[in-house]
Amino acid sequence: MSSTYGENLKLSIFGQSHGAAIGMTLDGIPAGLPVDPEKLQAFLNRRAPGQNDWSTPRREEDRPEFLSGILDGFTCGAPIAAIIYNKNTRSGDYDNLKDCPRPGHADYTAQIKYGGFQDSAGGGHFSGRLTAPLCMAGGLCKQWLEEMGIFMGAHILSIAGRRDQAFDPIHPQLSQVSPDFPVLDLSAGEAMRQAIDQARKSGDSVGGVIECAVVGLPPGIGEPMFGGVESRIAQIVYGIPAVKGVEFGAGFGASDLRGSQCNDPFTLEDGIVKTTTNHSGGILGGITNGMALLFRAAVKPTPSISAPQQSVSLSAQEITSLSVKGRHDPCIVPRAVPVVEAAAAIAIMDMILGNTQTDRRKMNHGLK
Amino acid sequence: MSSTYGENLKLSIFGQSHGAAIGMTLDGIPAGLPVDPEKLQAFLNRRAPGQNDWSTPRREEDRPEFLSGILDGFTCGAPIAAIIYNKNTRSGDYDNLKDCPRPGHADYTAQIKYGGFQDSAGGGHFSGRLTAPLCMAGGLCKQWLEEMGIFMGAHILSIAGRRDQAFDPIHPQLSQVSPDFPVLDLSAGEAMRQAIDQARKSGDSVGGVIECAVVGLPPGIGEPMFGGVESRIAQIVYGIPAVKGVEFGAGFGASDLRGSQCNDPFTLEDGIVKTTTNHSGGILGGITNGMALLFRAAVKPTPSISAPQQSVSLSAQEITSLSVKGRHDPCIVPRAVPVVEAAAAIAIMDMILGNTQTDRRKMNHGLK
Amino acid sequence: MSSTYGENLKLSIFGQSHGAAIGMTLDGIPAGLPVDPEKLQAFLNRRAPGQNDWSTPRREEDRPEFLSGILDGFTCGAPIAAIIYNKNTRSGDYDNLKDCPRPGHADYTAQIKYGGFQDSAGGGHFSGRLTAPLCMAGGLCKQWLEEMGIFMGAHILSIAGRRDQAFDPIHPQLSQVSPDFPVLDLSAGEAMRQAIDQARKSGDSVGGVIECAVVGLPPGIGEPMFGGVESRIAQIVYGIPAVKGVEFGAGFGASDLRGSQCNDPFTLEDGIVKTTTNHSGGILGGITNGMALLFRAAVKPTPSISAPQQSVSLSAQEITSLSVKGRHDPCIVPRAVPVVEAAAAIAIMDMILGNTQTDRRKMNHGLK
Amino acid sequence: MSSTYGENLKLSIFGQSHGAAIGMTLDGIPAGLPVDPEKLQAFLNRRAPGQNDWSTPRREEDRPEFLSGILDGFTCGAPIAAIIYNKNTRSGDYDNLKDCPRPGHADYTAQIKYGGFQDSAGGGHFSGRLTAPLCMAGGLCKQWLEEMGIFMGAHILSIAGRRDQAFDPIHPQLSQVSPDFPVLDLSAGEAMRQAIDQARKSGDSVGGVIECAVVGLPPGIGEPMFGGVESRIAQIVYGIPAVKGVEFGAGFGASDLRGSQCNDPFTLEDGIVKTTTNHSGGILGGITNGMALLFRAAVKPTPSISAPQQSVSLSAQEITSLSVKGRHDPCIVPRAVPVVEAAAAIAIMDMILGNTQTDRRKMNHGLK
Repeated sequence: MSSTYGENLKLSIFGQSHGAAIGMTLDGIPAGLPVDPEKLQAFLNRRAPGQNDWSTPRREEDRPEFLSGILDGFTCGAPIAAIIYNKNTRSGDYDNLKDCPRPGHADYTAQIKYGGFQDSAGGGHFSGRLTAPLCMAGGLCKQWLEEMGIFMGAHILSIAGRRDQAFDPIHPQLSQVSPDFPVLDLSAGEAMRQAIDQARKSGDSVGGVIECAVVGLPPGIGEPMFGGVESRIAQIVYGIPAVKGVEFGAGFGASDLRGSQCNDPFTLEDGIVKTTTNHSGGILGGITNGMALLFRAAVKPTPSISAPQQSVSLSAQEITSLSVKGRHDPCIVPRAVPVVEAAAAIAIMDMILGNTQTDRRKMNHGLK
Repeated sequence: MSSTYGENLKLSIFGQSHGAAIGMTLDGIPAGLPVDPEKLQAFLNRRAPGQNDWSTPRREEDRPEFLSGILDGFTCGAPIAAIIYNKNTRSGDYDNLKDCPRPGHADYTAQIKYGGFQDSAGGGHFSGRLTAPLCMAGGLCKQWLEEMGIFMGAHILSIAGRRDQAFDPIHPQLSQVSPDFPVLDLSAGEAMRQAIDQARKSGDSVGGVIECAVVGLPPGIGEPMFGGVESRIAQIVYGIPAVKGVEFGAGFGASDLRGSQCNDPFTLEDGIVKTTTNHSGGILGGITNGMALLFRAAVKPTPSISAPQQSVSLSAQEITSLSVKGRHDPCIVPRAVPVVEAAAAIAIMDMILGNTQTDRRKMNHGLK
Repeated sequence: MSSTYGENLKLSIFGQSHGAAIGMTLDGIPAGLPVDPEKLQAFLNRRAPGQNDWSTPRREEDRPEFLSGILDGFTCGAPIAAIIYNKNTRSGDYDNLKDCPRPGHADYTAQIKYGGFQDSAGGGHFSGRLTAPLCMAGGLCKQWLEEMGIFMGAHILSIAGRRDQAFDPIHPQLSQVSPDFPVLDLSAGEAMRQAIDQARKSGDSVGGVIECAVVGLPPGIGEPMFGGVESRIAQIVYGIPAVKGVEFGAGFGASDLRGSQCNDPFTLEDGIVKTTTNHSGGILGGITNGMALLFRAAVKPTPSISAPQQSVSLSAQEITSLSVKGRHDPCIVPRAVPVVEAAAAIAIMDMILGNTQTDRRKMNHGLK
Repeated sequence: MSSTYGENLKLSIFGQSHGAAIGMTLDGIPAGLPVDPEKLQAFLNRRAPGQNDWSTPRREEDRPEFLSGILDGFTCGAPIAAIIYNKNTRSGDYDNLKDCPRPGHADYTAQIKYGGFQDSAGGGHFSGRLTAPLCMAGGLCKQWLEEMGIFMGAHILSIAGRRDQAFDPIHPQLSQVSPDFPVLDLSAGEAMRQAIDQARKSGDSVGGVIECAVVGLPPGIGEPMFGGVESRIAQIVYGIPAVKGVEFGAGFGASDLRGSQCNDPFTLEDGIVKTTTNHSGGILGGITNGMALLFRAAVKPTPSISAPQQSVSLSAQEITSLSVKGRHDPCIVPRAVPVVEAAAAIAIMDMILGNTQTDRRKMNHGLK
């Protein structure tokens, strides 16, 4: 496993779905940054299961216990560690996954890689439950970015082809994302819920696309070639289970544009350089340009479905039919929205900490 | 800058477009791997400029000079270093890029980040010319992967909306990619060439999508969560200038499928576990599953166009019009095809070197 | 902070002396390695306080709780996490350390670096207590190395100038280290105990030197220039608080020898290449040569002493006198012995995992 | 190999003694730092061979050719690359080192690790010649540190037991090191030269100890536990061939002191916190305290001696006698003095770049 991330901050995520606890350590964070536990809890609740009819009925309070790194409401410079004990006992639901792997899951590849020693209960370390510690770290980073005037938000751009309005690429409407179901257009959200409901009723699942925007980023963040903003964000976002695509700005759509359409013309606003369009997604040459950072992540449909599927028995060496038992979200996209934000917050915090070019004020007003 | 890549191998790329030389160092490669210089040169020639009517007329032979790490045709365990001296003299074509940045380029963000100290001639370190050392390293890795029975290829999936046939996801037709213009369907290639030609004539440019496939990968490669195959490949592919999207398997298309459609059913072929479809792109849980690895990269249209564009003068603080001079490809997609292969080869070589799980034979026949 | 170590395994240590818990995560360990909890506990007990008259009377059972990564007695491939809750409540003993720093401690440098936000109670993250999680990780690595036939041990070479017999550099007497007080020569140990006792009675403290040996290492381990065995071991051993010197083989003594004395002549034993002396400490060019690995670490006297010392009041900007209260070992050397073993075990495990040169059997019989 | 170093800057060293060229790349350096090539050349000349009677008669001008990263006398933000072509042709002097390894050299361990594929001519990548690129990178870092008011110097503390006066630990006499032969006390230097001469005449060699001091370091640099100043400097200094010991401040001598002697009392000088002694070597808890940084490196005698030594023939499997031919320094300590400075400069530059705690001015006056 390589469940560690970061060049300057060092994030390490641990735990298995049905193990004793899940958690994270976050090293390299400066001392003196404020921590608001209630704000963090509110953020974690957006990811937590069991809140709505469209998510798994498994209900588990994701309340982190901080073990180190925070003192009297501020970071103390020491590594931060936080855990959540798992309350669900190890069930027998997953007994035969090592022999008969679920299509679309990591059961087979884990069996090959870890030779049968892997913890397969609930997907083990591959479970979506491991996004909870990612959200602990990301929720903290998000708070610290807000202290610097950097704000981020994400919404569901589509589920099963039902499409929400996209963010305005110049002025993303972060505050207009519905708190209940994270879309901009409530009627689109209603259509998505219906699609989820239909999938559940037929023992099936659906996927979708999440769009994320970050505003307030100073220009000059990112370390090309391989530490550019796209590289660093894509690396961590692909660490979220089920993500199969990541694009920035116009993304795949840019491939159909002409240069004269895709290039963002420069302009000046109150002496600050801006662009009149934002096909670059706020990134030129891997470095932020001061416009809104925009990216989208494609989430495949939940692989766990109750409808029968073709699998194989590794021991018997024969083809079998498999119906996945247990409680599963027919669509994980709504709960993945804060996870995408968390991943981006971690990557951005890491890049800001790694910025060794003089000081940030210079970057802000640095034209001359 | 962070022009270094790799957890186990360590790649470092250096040079500026109009500097003395460009090159790379590649550390961490085992001794005793064979090196075929002619095969490498043939690979580099696929990226070299000036070969066709659809690329820039600047003609420069990309013939690397090896400084270390190779002895009598084999790696010797020491770091490999190779350079290409730049023959083009520093021209005045780029004189005012620090004051009047080109839309879609890194001129502005470099000016902010490096405060005017950056080398702006020809784009400096941001130039597409820096993909030559990436191809040196990648071309070597590709040879070594072939020694292990791992073969890769890429083709143009689309340019300006003209679309080639996609790879067969189960048996990608690597050998059917045309050597002249890298497509599967020659008539699609002809339509793409025409689109490029039209763009050039109007002083404009076009972009496209590249599809890459890797066959022969053993199952079990990749280190989730953040060292998974998608994470590692996306990180390096986003280091290629102009890439704005990366997706694996069904990618963004997966978001519109139902789980019952997207999940790849398992089957058995001669005692080997396979899947009957390949929407996962050969990756489950960040780990290879033994099927073909498939991904696509979206390339934006070349930002350098001769048609006038709106920019700003940073010194005068006013909006201006800019026509980019110099020699530029109206479409870099054909030349980017081997670069995408190179990037993938480096990432895969790195992951194979980092595989600490017992031995590879076990992985190949590791069901029991 | 950078309390993470490792190129292939990734160790992250967290916790403060009087915080909620201390612990570690250890990522990158292959699945299927056996874990013997009792053996680990026995190892941790060697470091635990309060066992003898020569250590602090603070008594705390260091019994780790495993949160992840181990299943049914074997590693499962997922990151290992283990914690120890602190039972000692936050006391007032350390109230004024931020204003009046203890000589020889990190109080002052932490105040400067963390600006007063650091957790100063009990030394916070700088406390010797943080060597407990280091021993958890190192105790596990030591077990796994033993599975490979690699055995290590350490003893006190000197305390306050009272000197134990050194290890035989060809055949280190690992099994002859006394379990009670880790020396080879019990009368030397008795002299050391008396020196410690004298120091305690005068409110003072003493330091010493620890010698560590590793046998059974195959030749070929280590990645020069900067990943050589000396580099990797020194880096982690210097992470142990109070270590001020690290030397390998003849070490500083080598500087007084002539080449003809210092060079170890090669010989053959049953077809295996050996050396007749071992001034190199088993390392040539940063790579193991198959002889015993030998190194020594110098430990300064415990800085916390009850005798009055000169310090300053940072708030009053005046020189003051300070008597350190609280419970402190007059000599930490005996308890540091397993910590040095743990650090070496982690470094060696990391280097073995990172060995990308073909396979280990080849190394063992690799002469031809 | 792992000839890369650095967390924030990324140094990569390449080349073999008799290969085409040696060189280095240095990434992560901010733009706008001045580069004085003559000052760098003067620094490199201190390491260059063939200047004195006490060094090898092989004469080779170490004049680096810069390939990238520097523009008009300033760093441009892009990776810096510099090379030196080797003028010495591959000689037959080293033909049988793969079969009959030199005692004290890496010949045997390289043969085992690289299976005969290593470049053994002149020691290949293990040659002391590879310290030239280390000095290129270190010489640059030294210049940049001087811009920040940080100055460093080193001298020979002893050769073959002939001992120079030590640096004053409070006010190291950097400017009093003799430029001709780097000692403080010229008569001690004369005794050292005689010892070297005697060794050469008898076909033997001698070693020594180098002491290095750094003044002007702000307090607050270093990232414990494993990124502390001792850890980071020791890691890179052990990358210098022949170094077998590294100690800081009182070092091994601290182990014989009592706490009341070893602890450095705090005092105030013009409102700045100082210590009245400096047994800590300027480092408390892995973090600089604002006092002079002091460390020593033990260098073993040159292993290449012309006197006959016992070795083995790996092919014949028999014990043989070996006389090392070729030109070798009877003592490399004088030429290693700038190498130790270079290594320390690189480590310190790296730690300063990685300092994420607010701003440096705060650290300087950070008492309140």
